[in-house]
Amino acid sequence: MAAPAVAFSGSPLDRADNIRCDPDALGGLMDWRARLLKLDGLIPGITNDGTLEWGTLADAADDAELVFLGLLDGKACFAAVPEEGAGGPADPRAWQVLGLLQPADLALYGGARSLVDWHARHSFCARCGSPTKPAKGGWQRNCPACGAEHFPRTDPVTIMLVEHEDRLLLGRQPRFPPRMYSALAGFVEPGETIEEAVAREVLEEAGVTVHDVEYVASQPWPFPSQLMIGCHAKASDDALTIDRTELDDARWFTRGELLEAREAGPQGNDTIIYPRPFAIARTLIDWWLDR
Amino acid sequence: MAAPAVAFSGSPLDRADNIRCDPDALGGLMDWRARLLKLDGLIPGITNDGTLEWGTLADAADDAELVFLGLLDGKACFAAVPEEGAGGPADPRAWQVLGLLQPADLALYGGARSLVDWHARHSFCARCGSPTKPAKGGWQRNCPACGAEHFPRTDPVTIMLVEHEDRLLLGRQPRFPPRMYSALAGFVEPGETIEEAVAREVLEEAGVTVHDVEYVASQPWPFPSQLMIGCHAKASDDALTIDRTELDDARWFTRGELLEAREAGPQGNDTIIYPRPFAIARTLIDWWLDR
Repeated sequence: MAAPAVAFSGSPLDRADNIRCDPDALGGLMDWRARLLKLDGLIPGITNDGTLEWGTLADAADDAELVFLGLLDGKACFAAVPEEGAGGPADPRAWQVLGLLQPADLALYGGARSLVDWHARHSFCARCGSPTKPAKGGWQRNCPACGAEHFPRTDPVTIMLVEHEDRLLLGRQPRFPPRMYSALAGFVEPGETIEEAVAREVLEEAGVTVHDVEYVASQPWPFPSQLMIGCHAKASDDALTIDRTELDDARWFTRGELLEAREAGPQGNDTIIYPRPFAIARTLIDWWLDR
Repeated sequence: MAAPAVAFSGSPLDRADNIRCDPDALGGLMDWRARLLKLDGLIPGITNDGTLEWGTLADAADDAELVFLGLLDGKACFAAVPEEGAGGPADPRAWQVLGLLQPADLALYGGARSLVDWHARHSFCARCGSPTKPAKGGWQRNCPACGAEHFPRTDPVTIMLVEHEDRLLLGRQPRFPPRMYSALAGFVEPGETIEEAVAREVLEEAGVTVHDVEYVASQPWPFPSQLMIGCHAKASDDALTIDRTELDDARWFTRGELLEAREAGPQGNDTIIYPRPFAIARTLIDWWLDR
């Protein structure tokens, strides 16, 4: 079965990997025709038409580090690294702006944001502490002192629908608004398969043993740079032992409860607020309800 | 369908995430009963029985950074961060030793290696350049100067069987031994789904457009710390445009050719050497041949 559509995917950019590695070709593109993604810190500029705003390289500060995003309609696209990175979740202002964008622009912005945010938070060499310099059009940083090469991070995270007798296990993180429940999730650690990470997270957070873990869909999540790997798993039984340091609550929801919550819209109903747009949790629950 | 078995998976360790975050509990485990994984640099010690060799914490250097691997048979297991990391592929000596290990020990070693190798190469803060300190039993490093938190890397890589009319597309990297062909592969970049990364890599490296990308299996690969995400995809046609900076060669192999190569063993036959044990490429091709 084809993977369901997810937010932050479907970027129209050609990443043009061959150009990154060719300083002459890259230099040749950095003229008045090149486009610069307008950013205020990490917040995108938006035109009156609700599309991403672009300027030219002349709009960048003289000492700005520029990253090559790729080609769009034959034009080279760049973004400037902001002085401060974010590294964490998006703030309310970002969500407000992102809600205005069409899917292709959202995907383009997400990839660009992850990349410039990484640069802003990684200007020193983790191996020796010296300042590093961007290389390969901004897809690498090199350390002139010790020779180490550093690459943008993409952190795989498993996020899973756990099913038992036609009910789904959803949980609340302490930082969630009241009544919002979502799929359990956690970073894949060194030394784990995707399936092992799913089983460990569900056992740690909810005390539930799972089997038959299956991949459903993936999504890039640019806050700051996760690869969300959406899975479905079956629970061996429905007894919960909730890790209260990780979760405020977790419970089983019937198909009927989830259909009602989806129907109730962004404010939810008395029981639950359905996960917000953009989140792969929503895509996964939609997929489960509609299949 | 259940994911096929892969090397470096199935670690018998309980990662005991709750202990990492509890300094008192962790400190209480660091006594004479705790076990220390014997490492010479990043190479494991092996007993005469072909199992991983363990010592006690007294075997570690006084100033060694210790990471908490987890619990095994109720005993706390640690590894010491070596003075030098590796960061790249395993050397021939490592492969020789790893060939002696049973799957559970291989998985345990792989996870430990990724973690201590990361520490050895990340002792400074990428944000401000100051020395960092291990935290949470070695699953984090904190910067006392700027407050940044740093986490071990796990880098997702897509690796894919591309199929066209019952033939598979395999390629040779320049560093491969003569006649060795394997599945195409490449890092997932910020802003991509797994499926998009597969399609981009195959187009970049071989000039082939794919559709119907499906996840098959994943594998942790501890050289230094990849999450290999194995997929299957269908090619729209079989014309190849090979990127010679990435690949020495790529070609389509019939089922018969691959069955013969597998049969021929580690030295292969006149046409091809089948991918080596441990590699998920081998698992994937086996899966395709045998399904």
